[in-house]
Amino acid sequence: MILFEDIQRYIDKLNYLSKVEDEDVLKPMEEFAQKVGFPIVGRSVGRFLYIITKLKNPKLIVEVGSGYGYSAYWFAKAIGNGKVVLTDYNQDNLDKARNFLSKAGLIEKVEIRLGNGVEIAKDYKNIDILFFDHEKAKYLDSILMLKDNLNSGGIVIADNTLWHGKVLEEAPDRQTKKIKEFNEYMFSSPEFFTTLIPLRDGLIVAIKF
Amino acid sequence: MILFEDIQRYIDKLNYLSKVEDEDVLKPMEEFAQKVGFPIVGRSVGRFLYIITKLKNPKLIVEVGSGYGYSAYWFAKAIGNGKVVLTDYNQDNLDKARNFLSKAGLIEKVEIRLGNGVEIAKDYKNIDILFFDHEKAKYLDSILMLKDNLNSGGIVIADNTLWHGKVLEEAPDRQTKKIKEFNEYMFSSPEFFTTLIPLRDGLIVAIKF
Repeated sequence: MILFEDIQRYIDKLNYLSKVEDEDVLKPMEEFAQKVGFPIVGRSVGRFLYIITKLKNPKLIVEVGSGYGYSAYWFAKAIGNGKVVLTDYNQDNLDKARNFLSKAGLIEKVEIRLGNGVEIAKDYKNIDILFFDHEKAKYLDSILMLKDNLNSGGIVIADNTLWHGKVLEEAPDRQTKKIKEFNEYMFSSPEFFTTLIPLRDGLIVAIKF
Repeated sequence: MILFEDIQRYIDKLNYLSKVEDEDVLKPMEEFAQKVGFPIVGRSVGRFLYIITKLKNPKLIVEVGSGYGYSAYWFAKAIGNGKVVLTDYNQDNLDKARNFLSKAGLIEKVEIRLGNGVEIAKDYKNIDILFFDHEKAKYLDSILMLKDNLNSGGIVIADNTLWHGKVLEEAPDRQTKKIKEFNEYMFSSPEFFTTLIPLRDGLIVAIKF
């Protein structure tokens, strides 16, 4: 448990007071997540990604782990003259992403690539925002492999860093241990200035110096 | 209750893994808050303000309600070629702020003004970040009075917008009602894109279109 449920509900209610242009795309994406239990970041985190993107004004965003494009929607909606790279192992997810992002008129803002997101990310040398939402046990290795591909002043955003509160357990499982190591690395590394935002399942937001 | 206490403790522990230059200024500010019960935003929110400021790269930040300068420290530390305006009713608070910010070598980044923060903020026409931490019942009137002083793309950050969880009460007091009205205004206004971040006591972060 992270946030008291009633607080989350209050924030969610506020989120839906805000008119967004693409409710006819977002609602089906959210309903599909609910129906099949797909772990999307949800409206609160999505809106936060939008704000971070507007502030950063990035040329290049790379997502490691895009699912069917829910986070990519918010990045692409906010990006000006730039590109969002989506990656996923699953062709069906990516087909859905292409479909949703087309409907939202955002397909020209994105590049959709099948395969290992970390390997794909290595192809890009000047990343402004790097988004992690892949296998949690791989976050630490992934940032070590990719940090030199981030521009100075670039942003790392990593989802699920509170891992349903499991980071508090006295005898955490291997995956949880690896997430804790990732968090500790991000906060103690002199290469990053890091915060952990308790939105939904916990979001690391860090700036590379 | 907003965040589970153990989660807050976990995030705090991570915060202190991060070496910051001015621990000899920050620690005394935090200890003083603890000693006298002064409501500062704390390390998590402070670090978040730092990141937002780095991303925004503002010329002008105006604080409505600065206390003795804890939030101003983080703004001033992050600001490049710009200025942070501190306001407070209490001369003693502002003297402390001047002292702390001098010690941190940040005094040339700030302007310190005694009086009604909203009235003072009206003097500035091109605000990039407007920070609210004054009387909670006045947030709504204040944003209505000041929104035209914000640049397009400017940011509003308002502290205490979950008000110790009181926003959930069935029969909220007047102050809580006014905070709820402020939150609803910020989310439903077509002039802003708004999020509520459940850091500490709840932070509204909004971009003016």
